[in-house]
Amino acid sequence: MTNAAPSSGVIPPVCTPLTPEREVDTASLTRLVDHLLEGGVHGLFVLGSSSEVAFLPDRHRRTVLDIVLGHVAGQVPVLAGVIDMTAPRVVDHARVAAEAGAAGLVATAPFYTRTHPAEIATHFRAIAAATDLPVYAYDLPVSVHSKLPADVLLELAAEGVLAGLKDSSGDEAGLRQVILGRRDRGLESFAVFTGSELTVDSALWMGADGVVPGLGNVDPHAYVRLYEAARRGDWTAAREEQERLFRLFGLVNVGGPHMGRGSSALGAFKAALHLRGVIDHPTTALPQVPLDAAEIDQVKTFLSEAALI
Amino acid sequence: MTNAAPSSGVIPPVCTPLTPEREVDTASLTRLVDHLLEGGVHGLFVLGSSSEVAFLPDRHRRTVLDIVLGHVAGQVPVLAGVIDMTAPRVVDHARVAAEAGAAGLVATAPFYTRTHPAEIATHFRAIAAATDLPVYAYDLPVSVHSKLPADVLLELAAEGVLAGLKDSSGDEAGLRQVILGRRDRGLESFAVFTGSELTVDSALWMGADGVVPGLGNVDPHAYVRLYEAARRGDWTAAREEQERLFRLFGLVNVGGPHMGRGSSALGAFKAALHLRGVIDHPTTALPQVPLDAAEIDQVKTFLSEAALI
Amino acid sequence: MTNAAPSSGVIPPVCTPLTPEREVDTASLTRLVDHLLEGGVHGLFVLGSSSEVAFLPDRHRRTVLDIVLGHVAGQVPVLAGVIDMTAPRVVDHARVAAEAGAAGLVATAPFYTRTHPAEIATHFRAIAAATDLPVYAYDLPVSVHSKLPADVLLELAAEGVLAGLKDSSGDEAGLRQVILGRRDRGLESFAVFTGSELTVDSALWMGADGVVPGLGNVDPHAYVRLYEAARRGDWTAAREEQERLFRLFGLVNVGGPHMGRGSSALGAFKAALHLRGVIDHPTTALPQVPLDAAEIDQVKTFLSEAALI
Amino acid sequence: MTNAAPSSGVIPPVCTPLTPEREVDTASLTRLVDHLLEGGVHGLFVLGSSSEVAFLPDRHRRTVLDIVLGHVAGQVPVLAGVIDMTAPRVVDHARVAAEAGAAGLVATAPFYTRTHPAEIATHFRAIAAATDLPVYAYDLPVSVHSKLPADVLLELAAEGVLAGLKDSSGDEAGLRQVILGRRDRGLESFAVFTGSELTVDSALWMGADGVVPGLGNVDPHAYVRLYEAARRGDWTAAREEQERLFRLFGLVNVGGPHMGRGSSALGAFKAALHLRGVIDHPTTALPQVPLDAAEIDQVKTFLSEAALI
Repeated sequence: MTNAAPSSGVIPPVCTPLTPEREVDTASLTRLVDHLLEGGVHGLFVLGSSSEVAFLPDRHRRTVLDIVLGHVAGQVPVLAGVIDMTAPRVVDHARVAAEAGAAGLVATAPFYTRTHPAEIATHFRAIAAATDLPVYAYDLPVSVHSKLPADVLLELAAEGVLAGLKDSSGDEAGLRQVILGRRDRGLESFAVFTGSELTVDSALWMGADGVVPGLGNVDPHAYVRLYEAARRGDWTAAREEQERLFRLFGLVNVGGPHMGRGSSALGAFKAALHLRGVIDHPTTALPQVPLDAAEIDQVKTFLSEAALI
Repeated sequence: MTNAAPSSGVIPPVCTPLTPEREVDTASLTRLVDHLLEGGVHGLFVLGSSSEVAFLPDRHRRTVLDIVLGHVAGQVPVLAGVIDMTAPRVVDHARVAAEAGAAGLVATAPFYTRTHPAEIATHFRAIAAATDLPVYAYDLPVSVHSKLPADVLLELAAEGVLAGLKDSSGDEAGLRQVILGRRDRGLESFAVFTGSELTVDSALWMGADGVVPGLGNVDPHAYVRLYEAARRGDWTAAREEQERLFRLFGLVNVGGPHMGRGSSALGAFKAALHLRGVIDHPTTALPQVPLDAAEIDQVKTFLSEAALI
Repeated sequence: MTNAAPSSGVIPPVCTPLTPEREVDTASLTRLVDHLLEGGVHGLFVLGSSSEVAFLPDRHRRTVLDIVLGHVAGQVPVLAGVIDMTAPRVVDHARVAAEAGAAGLVATAPFYTRTHPAEIATHFRAIAAATDLPVYAYDLPVSVHSKLPADVLLELAAEGVLAGLKDSSGDEAGLRQVILGRRDRGLESFAVFTGSELTVDSALWMGADGVVPGLGNVDPHAYVRLYEAARRGDWTAAREEQERLFRLFGLVNVGGPHMGRGSSALGAFKAALHLRGVIDHPTTALPQVPLDAAEIDQVKTFLSEAALI
Repeated sequence: MTNAAPSSGVIPPVCTPLTPEREVDTASLTRLVDHLLEGGVHGLFVLGSSSEVAFLPDRHRRTVLDIVLGHVAGQVPVLAGVIDMTAPRVVDHARVAAEAGAAGLVATAPFYTRTHPAEIATHFRAIAAATDLPVYAYDLPVSVHSKLPADVLLELAAEGVLAGLKDSSGDEAGLRQVILGRRDRGLESFAVFTGSELTVDSALWMGADGVVPGLGNVDPHAYVRLYEAARRGDWTAAREEQERLFRLFGLVNVGGPHMGRGSSALGAFKAALHLRGVIDHPTTALPQVPLDAAEIDQVKTFLSEAALI
């Protein structure tokens, strides 16, 4: 029962259930938290990309923090996304997250503005200077259109600016560069999480400490099994679990060409949680395109084949 | 003396002067507004990219709105940027801007999230539905990493969702497609502004109604001369003015490889305003890299060659 | 009746008609050349992107050179594309083009390999050193994924390495930078052609010398009228012609989502030439997807609205 | 002693040594082949990206084929790159490679032209139809700017068009999709090689059959040790070897900002081979920028730390 920042394990990015009127569905949100805790996860990450953070106004962000942190009540540490364009705006979110009791903050590189490695470093230094909470860097080029350079990350780790990394870049060689770099520089307390939910076994094999899997909303038990198998050295079991999850992950592609890939993936996660009885509505935030009935049926098939319904 | 939304003319995106402590320098801001009004501009655009909107926390955004709208007091219409990731967040900024008295709102496509034409349309519809102010679309692929499709813009214009466009895409064929499309569809009240400050003569020649030039902070008189020359059909004079401004624009590149292109451009605009005596400090917002003394000297040379100091 | 390299005018990139068996249809090719000459063009550009050069094996390239140069017989200068990945391969094509009697060579930046401004300069220097023909740089980021920097172009012009530029980058500010740069540096003999067929009036207005329009295959007379109007200072007529051609250009988009944008555009040009009776078959090279009957009907509508059939 | 196409193992892409005059250095080339064979590699891949294929004129390509195939004389199978823009041009290279005795062909997606999944499929079908040799798809988005879709690859495997894949995309989830897809569809004879030389242990762990490592030119023994360790199930040894190679791979970054990343990497491979006494000259093809003395010293340090000199 601690609020220490997590350094390993399965830490799913918690979806944000919405009512049909697109308010935060707090009852569903607490059920989702229970579902994840019951699955054995080692922490929670709220207000990340899978939480639709880009679509949540500040009052919704605050509601999510209050509800989740109140409900979790210290059972596991809760990381909070502080996603905004640059440090001066991120710092405002950091203050709110700290007041709510988050165990750590997760921030991306600057976006909207064209950035530069020196500016990325200044950005994280400014965030860290403004908060007492540990700061995790979130590497997400698909959203922010720049890649966090390994040497910048390691330098910021050595300075004590960064407590860890969530790497959702899909660049496994880059991930390995950070893992080997921290070993070479004696920075073992710098925590490395992968957000690449389809290569978790190999990321752990390379030396990553944990995973932040969007699909973990749908099947947290499986990611915990995968992680625990790897921890005890049963890599074959880890791989089998990963391969099963790989197939389940196909549900993110059910959305047709009439929507963006984000609408499809987030819509599928929510449809799956709805079909599994965890949340009351599969509603996604505006301006995302909702899945239609045939697409939801495909989600159902994926769940059925994975024995999740 | 009106608050009607502008449909033509020179509408510079107003820089946001900062104190060395990186608070809004309100005295400098009002001097900058006077400098622009004295230059004869037809409107002002606050909280755009050249205003460092990506770096301004909400309280700074509000200060800028209050100071500028209070000082302008209806002399020219003032557009307000409502830059955020998606409609639900944009709407909050829209409310603040409306309360402050803005004449219109300027919003980009969704960013951070991967988007889609259908989602872009829903995004603008949701913004327009939440405000009484006219909404202008801001096409800025370099920041948001998607291009506003001409057919979506024209459809939203026909629906009455959009009042106009600020096109900073650099895609002159795309600009022309919108201009010809509005003519073909009888949407002449849909205002088209270019943000491409180096091809204003040709944009006006194609039929654009006005320009939103970042460089207009530094030399508003010249953009007004350019615009007025075009209006009276003296295209040769317009071209000469544009070519002079083209050379002056070279100042945006003074920053070396130790900074991003945004740091260089915004740093140069502010250095120029400082050198011209308009603002008190050339300070840019974090985490931008400041220009060094040699780089500021180069800005000085550009100003001197343009007879601006 | 000269073979001097062209420094101005309308120089269409000549389509390469194919038989149904996908051999060069030499009878159609000579008819196409006659069609263009009859339209009053000032030169021809064979083996460019619109010629499907990326799809032509070396023996087809040679056939095109022999047929066109033999048929033109010095009536207008003929430029030859020497499109390949790097200088050592380009030089082989240059030798063949010189033997066939081309008036000049057109080469892109290196592609397939990741390049660099210093390598781009070396590349053009190596090509120029290996040939007696004038070399034109072809700026085509959509194909080669790098942009020719204005300062590199001007430096190579000053060295005598480059005789001119065909700018198909769509970056009108970049085009202007070259045009103003050559004026400032006294490099007026460096010829600047735009390949942006929808903004020819404004490119000529900025100071470009001519145009290389793919759509000029379909309607060469119109591009010549546009060019001649601009030359005599009748910019309003030039703009009207450009706007008419803008609408005709819509035919490049008839291809549906089952094909790439190149298949759609090249298929439409060839379908239009077939419908106009200039070439015998609308066949495009493998692996392009052919237009279907409904798509060809749309081409017909575009031609009909433009009074070309 | 067979010419069967390889389905597993370490198959380095063979560098192409050049004389100072930039002709193929055939003596060095045969020594390099011996060096690789002595290292225990299971096959060779000539005329790939690491072979500087983009810089080799056709006569050099032919020389490489003749020298290597003559010298190897069936000891291991030799794959030949047939790198060109589209199928009609690739087929010409295929004919030459077949005449020279290659065991299989390696072709990328179309490039220079904008492509489409349907066109990629047609492209590979056209190549396969024109040759008796097995065809391997080469997934290299960094060069060709499109990604081979897993479903297209699996469909072409099922049709018998493709014999295998060399995946240098860096997309490990995509690699896994192909590996699981071939298992699900019973296409186990479809060979999957990774070209990502820094994640070979994890690629083999996922089920890849082998690796095509550029760095294998410098240290073939290590890649063979890595592969053999994985084959016998000693994954810890495989990982240690991979981590050692990861550090050695740092040599590709010795080139400074005055050159492209390709010049740096290929320059470093050749400098290392020269320093190890395998080839006579570190010369790279034009228009690449050569490493300077200080950069070559850094290569030396990497080799020394890896106990390779």
